[in-house]
Order: sequence, then structure tokens, then C-alpha cells
Amino acid sequence: MEQAEIGLIGLGVMGANLALNIAEKGNRIAVFNRTPEKTDSFYAEAGDLASRIVPCRTMDEFIAAIRPPRPIIIMIKAGEAVDEQIAALKSELGAGDIIIDAGNANFRDTVRRFKELEGSGLTFIGMGVSGGEEGARHGPSIMVGGTEQSYARVEKVLTSISAKFDNEPCCAWLGTDGAGHFVKTIHNGIEYADMQMIAEIYGLLRDGAGKSATDIGNVFGSWNKGRLNSYLIEITEKVLLAGDVHGTGPIVDMILDKAGQKGTGKWSVIEAQQLGVPATAIEAAVAARVLSSMKDQRVAAEAVFGSAPGKLAADAGFLTDLELALFAAKIGAYAQGFAVMSEASKEFGWSLPMPTIAKIWRAGCIIRSQFLDEITSAFTAMPDAENLIMTPAFSAMVKEALPSLRRVVAAAVTAGLPVPALSAALSYFDSYRQARGTANLIQAQRDFFGAHGFDRLDGKDIHHGPWGSGAGA
Amino acid sequence: MEQAEIGLIGLGVMGANLALNIAEKGNRIAVFNRTPEKTDSFYAEAGDLASRIVPCRTMDEFIAAIRPPRPIIIMIKAGEAVDEQIAALKSELGAGDIIIDAGNANFRDTVRRFKELEGSGLTFIGMGVSGGEEGARHGPSIMVGGTEQSYARVEKVLTSISAKFDNEPCCAWLGTDGAGHFVKTIHNGIEYADMQMIAEIYGLLRDGAGKSATDIGNVFGSWNKGRLNSYLIEITEKVLLAGDVHGTGPIVDMILDKAGQKGTGKWSVIEAQQLGVPATAIEAAVAARVLSSMKDQRVAAEAVFGSAPGKLAADAGFLTDLELALFAAKIGAYAQGFAVMSEASKEFGWSLPMPTIAKIWRAGCIIRSQFLDEITSAFTAMPDAENLIMTPAFSAMVKEALPSLRRVVAAAVTAGLPVPALSAALSYFDSYRQARGTANLIQAQRDFFGAHGFDRLDGKDIHHGPWGSGAGA
Repeated sequence: MEQAEIGLIGLGVMGANLALNIAEKGNRIAVFNRTPEKTDSFYAEAGDLASRIVPCRTMDEFIAAIRPPRPIIIMIKAGEAVDEQIAALKSELGAGDIIIDAGNANFRDTVRRFKELEGSGLTFIGMGVSGGEEGARHGPSIMVGGTEQSYARVEKVLTSISAKFDNEPCCAWLGTDGAGHFVKTIHNGIEYADMQMIAEIYGLLRDGAGKSATDIGNVFGSWNKGRLNSYLIEITEKVLLAGDVHGTGPIVDMILDKAGQKGTGKWSVIEAQQLGVPATAIEAAVAARVLSSMKDQRVAAEAVFGSAPGKLAADAGFLTDLELALFAAKIGAYAQGFAVMSEASKEFGWSLPMPTIAKIWRAGCIIRSQFLDEITSAFTAMPDAENLIMTPAFSAMVKEALPSLRRVVAAAVTAGLPVPALSAALSYFDSYRQARGTANLIQAQRDFFGAHGFDRLDGKDIHHGPWGSGAGA
Repeated sequence: MEQAEIGLIGLGVMGANLALNIAEKGNRIAVFNRTPEKTDSFYAEAGDLASRIVPCRTMDEFIAAIRPPRPIIIMIKAGEAVDEQIAALKSELGAGDIIIDAGNANFRDTVRRFKELEGSGLTFIGMGVSGGEEGARHGPSIMVGGTEQSYARVEKVLTSISAKFDNEPCCAWLGTDGAGHFVKTIHNGIEYADMQMIAEIYGLLRDGAGKSATDIGNVFGSWNKGRLNSYLIEITEKVLLAGDVHGTGPIVDMILDKAGQKGTGKWSVIEAQQLGVPATAIEAAVAARVLSSMKDQRVAAEAVFGSAPGKLAADAGFLTDLELALFAAKIGAYAQGFAVMSEASKEFGWSLPMPTIAKIWRAGCIIRSQFLDEITSAFTAMPDAENLIMTPAFSAMVKEALPSLRRVVAAAVTAGLPVPALSAALSYFDSYRQARGTANLIQAQRDFFGAHGFDRLDGKDIHHGPWGSGAGA
């Protein structure tokens, strides 16, 4: 029998979908699951694709079924299970074989695993896969970290199964060891911010302008035809227009306002902090999810402080302002995310290709959009831009949209409607383009109480203030 | 010769000052430094206090000079040097002796070191010391983590040297292993926010109202007589009024607007993230320091985007609004910091005493203020308050001051003057007291693309939306 091009361990929903996708694109694949019954039922339900699937009930069978050097995707619960699986595979595999972790790993684990396999003859790939179950089945965005050589072995399969944008595969090798999982983490951080900003605009329309879910859905639907065109805006329209089949009215009005999280948003801001890169819009979004989960405290606090004191004047320019405000804030969040990746690239020696990252996010993943094509162009035209908003294309967009963001945040703040991510993005712009900031005062204070020193504008070699004996108390 | 009550290793500025403080308060102390010449010069300059100082040129001498069980403070560079010092001491010390790390350690290192010494007969104390050089010399705030038994051995010395507030020592045992260093880290995070908020108000007065440094100094001076009374406001007045002895005009106008940091602010927000507690005002302050250091980028960005588009109307109520805005925002930052400690206490099994922490910050440390006495009272009256702002005293203060914060942030946002920490605090209040938030939309989106599920307001056992076949794309 012809050997399989690739193997996959773990036939949960994501793994099964990925395996079907691989088979469907003409690749022969061997599959294995800890529970063989799952392998049997997966195979039985594979229909036409079964001809390219090799179901294996034992590990020996599985290994023998794959053409060496063997690429083996593991798609299992992130964490210890991955280490155990690697240990189990290590004794079975031979020189040149490649273990590919396609789960949502913390990139620091991926770096560690990559190092641990060095010298063993095996190589390790950490692969970020975005797009949820349907993405896995029909075309995800794929972010690969590992050696270039090991990527060469799997490039054909991976590009065949990934999403395509203008016929270009949304799959790329991004750097060594943890590069792929790091980029996936930042993708998720940006996704948090994107979703939170949409939710804040929804809140302004709902609580500030008193609009129904259906009306708001239609607003997002119209925006999806313009500059905000994206998967997230598209599904926002859809969920707002969906009825409650178990009651009356829109389903969204019946959903509890407690949002969950799986940790990648948190990881993204922790790494931003470790790298010393401002990611305040993403931080605000992560905090907003946490605050959403504190429902009991919020109910108790509203009883003490009352609800939002004001409403919004929904005049003629209001909707246009909201659209532009969301657009400007979104640029801020993406600028922060790309800045984090740029710094990580230096820190971890990855040479992350910014235009390529934007490229492979254009389709397949949750934040996919036309907008990412514009980021691709902007970074291609100016690869060493220090910040996305300093590229000519984006500085022009920011200039156009910033006054709207300013008006919307001021109005929301006045009305008492929370816009943490929108205002974090605005603060970011206003701080970033302030040539003379206010940290001179902070340096003076630090020198006063801790003799930390400062530099002078005139360059004189004098680094302490004339605080005298009263200082340092 | 009478044995010393305590020993100290490391006669840098902080260690030397701490040793002098210990001697001055009537305690006999043995001192040791890697370079014996430093020990000699320290002793030679100790004046009257020399009679209570035992200078030791060898480790054997040093160990012999201290009354067992020996408490030994190490005050050296945080990091590997501490581990090396502990290893060196381990072979010299005997059962019951106590190694006290008084440096700015990451509490995770302290937890590890505490564990590593368990079973060795020695015990370990991680001790946060705040107040800078002068605090060390004349009375710092001291936050102790370790066993209660080991604290009992050093309590007398430590309370004798600490700052006092209304005759109560600003020194306390806060819990086991890393509790003291953790609380010190959060102290520093709050300090970052406090300083950043002051700098933002300074910026509004300077760039929005066009006031001189001297005028602004006088404003802070007047505020220091009111509810904002604190060490940081006091020194803000002083640094703003100080002249440039190497030029003309106020020194603050000659200081470069790039602020440094030593890592504790970053640690505080990383730990807040790990614990899942919103600390957005502190995050904004840390990000502001980072942005301040990006001077070249800021100059380039102002050339592209222009400077702030507006000014502020400095009318009659303006100064009062600024004072109340700063006060409200400050409450927000402290509420976040205490919430982080409260969660850490559960996570790490410390039973951190909130009223005690507020108490020992009332004097000695950088954020010392009358305000902390009010926090002490509020937490004493309501020890299980879920948030500082839910205590009756603070909810009343927030209610009074919040409208001013709202007006100030709206005006700053409109004028384009950056107020990241003030607006993060405002967003925190507005999110925290919103009983019905907007996360219902986020849960709908997450269910749409990832089948993450949601709960319903009516409690029905139905956890997915009617998204149909278009979903999950």
C-alpha cells in the first residue's frame, strides 16, 4: 500500500476536521487516536475521503504507514498531554521525523520542546492554526515555527489545506522554534481587542442610542460593505439578527453578559509586558472579559453607583462617527499587536516577516479581512516601519478617522458608557504622537526620592536635581 | 563582647542606611561586605553609632558576632547574586538561623528560595522595603513574608527601625514565603499609577491650560493641603518649584521626557494578568513609561500627525475638577491594586490582611498618605469588601468625585491631550458598575465561530445559538 504523506494523532473535533481537510486536498493521511473506537468511527464517517485515510489502531501500524521522514501532527489538549505524547513518540520515531504540535500551545512550551528534541534526530514544529472547527475543515490560517528544512517537508501538504486569499495560501514558515505559536498568540490578542471594540460600539448603540438588536445588526451589516469589511463584522450582523428559537425577540438579548476566555489573550499581554511593548488596547480587552465575568459584583455596584448617567445624541453624523471610531481604534489594536511581534522577533531571533504575517491572516482566521490586505501592502512598501501607523497608507487612515474616535470617546465618557478599548486606542495615538511628553515630571520625582537621575534637554552632563536636604525623604 | 542582635550583608547605599538605622534605634548590628574596605569606611564614618556596630572582615567573624538564632539581612543586587549569597551562607549557618532578603526580589524567586531552604534548618524571609535611601536611613515601610516564628525573632528590631504613623510601626508580617515581596511589587505598581496620573494632570495644566511650571507647582502645593495630601503630591510641588541651577527657569522644563523603570511595575501587571484581575490603570501607567522612552518615534509621529488639536478652557471650576479627577482616578488605581492582592492571597494561601497593608503604607513608603489611613479604616470596617470602592466611605468619595473625572477625561480626549491612566480608571468605574454589560455579544460571537457556548438570562439549559450552517466559517 502507498505510504501516507503525513500522520495525525488526536481525532477530537479539530483533529478530525484537519484530517478530513488533508485527505480532501488529495493527500494520503494516517490517523491514530488513543481510543481506537474513535479512529474506527472517524473512518466509517469519512465517506469518499476514506480512500485517502489510513486508520491505525496501533502505534506500530501508524508509524509504518507514513513515508519517512515522517511528519506527525499532534492535535491534543495543550499542556502535559503534549509532553507525554512527545515522549511516547520519541522512542518510536527515527532520524528526520517531525513532530508537529498543532494545538494552542504557549510559545514558551514550544521553545522548550524544540530545544528538548534538538540532538535527538527528531525535529519539532509548533504550528498555530486559526479558524475554529470550520477553518480546520475547509481552510485555516497556518502559522509555522520550526526549522526551514522541516517546513520544506510539509509545505506542500500545509499549503494545500490552508485558506487562500487571491489564490495565495494563508500558510507560512515564520521562524524557528516558538515563532508560529507566538504569532498565533498575538493573533488571538488582536482578536480579543477587535471583538471588544465591536462590543463597545454595540453598547453605545444599545444603551446610548436605545437601538434594538435588529437595528444594530443592520448597522453592522451596512458597515460590512465598507472599510470595516471583515469576518467579525459579518458575524456580528448575523448574531444580532438571529431570533431566539426558544423565546421571542433576538437571541443576543437572552444571552448572559459573561464572556469566557481560554488564556491566549492573557498570554499575549503578558508577553507584551515582558517585551516592554505597549499593548493597552489588548490589555483593556482582556480586562473587559474579566470584568464581564464578575457579574455579581457589577450588579452590586450598579445598585450603589447607579447606571450610566447619560444618553448619546444619535444625530446625522453619529453612525458615521461610530464607523470611523471603530476603524481608528482597530488600527490602534493592530498597530500594537504588530509592534509586539516586531520586538519579539528581535528578542527571540526570529526575523518575523510582518508582510507575510498580515498576508496569511487575510483569510482562514477569525480576524480575516480586507483590512489585512492593506496591512500587507503597507508593510511590503515599508518593511522597516517602526509602527503600522507610520506607514503612509495607515497614517492617512488614522488622520481621517481619529477625529471621529475622539468625538465618540468623549461622548461615551460623558454619558458614562464604558469604552475601555476604544479609549485605550485613543490614548495610544495621543501619547504616540506627543513629541514632548510629561515624563520629565516623573523623572524629576524619581530623582527626588530615589536618586535615579535624568538627562537634560540641553545635553549637559548633569543628572540630578537641586532638591537639597529635603529630598529623598 | 555582647553579641549583635542582627547581621547585615551588603553595604551599598541601601544596606548602609539600613544598618545605620538599626544601630541608631539601639540595636547592636554586625555588618559584612564582600569588599572589606567598604566595611572599614562604613565603620569609620558611622560616628556615634559605631559603638553599636560590629564591623566584620571575614564571614567567620561575622557569623560568630551574631546571637543565635541569627537573623541576617542581605541587601545586594536582586537576582543570581542572592542565590549565590544564600548558597555561601548555607554552609556557615546553623539550625534556626534566618536569611532575610531585603532587596527588590521578584516574589516568585522568594517563593522558590523559601522552598529550597525548607528542611535545611534555616528559614528564609522575603522582606519588601520601601522608602528609598532616606526611608532606609530614617524609617521605611517594611513588608515581611516568611514563617511567623522567624518573624517573631526579628519583630523587635524591624518595628524599631520602621516608619511610624500615629506611633504605630509601618512594619508587619503579611504571610508566608513570597507575601512580603508580592505586596511590595503591588505597592510599586500603585506607585507607577499614582505618578502617571499626577503627570497627566500636570500635562493638562501645562499643555491644555498653558500654565508655567511654577504656577502648576503652586496648584499641587494647594492640593497637598486637601484630600490629595501625600508624599508624592508634596514632592511634585517641590520639583515643579525648583529652579535650574545650571540655567534659567524651572529645572523640570529642562528634564528630558524619558522615564526609566526597574521592572517592578511590569511585574505587578504580569501578576495581575496571571491572577485574572483587571489592573488597567497600572497597565496604562507602565505603558506610558515605555512610550516615554520611545522619544524618537514620538518626535517622528508628531511630525506626521501634528500636535494636540485643542486647548482646555481653564474656567472657574477647572482646578476643582482636576483635583477631584485626580482623586477619583487614584481611588481606581488603589482599588485595582488591592483587588490584585486580595486574589493573590487566595491563590497563594497567604491570608493577606488588607487593613494591615494599608496601615503599613501610611508612612515610610513612596505612596504614603493620609489617604491610606482612610483605606485602613474602610477595610477595617468591612474586611471582606470585594472592592475598595464598595466600602461605604469610598463609594461616597467616588460618587462625589466621578463627575469631575468624567468632565476632565472628556475635555482631555477632545483636546487630544493623553490621559491614559485617568481614562483607564474611568473605564474601570464605568465597567464595574454596569450590571448588564455587552459581553453577551462577545459570547454570541464566540459561540458562532468556536461553539464555545453561553448561558441564558432565563436559565434555560440551552447553550448554543441558532446560527445554522453559515456559522463557524
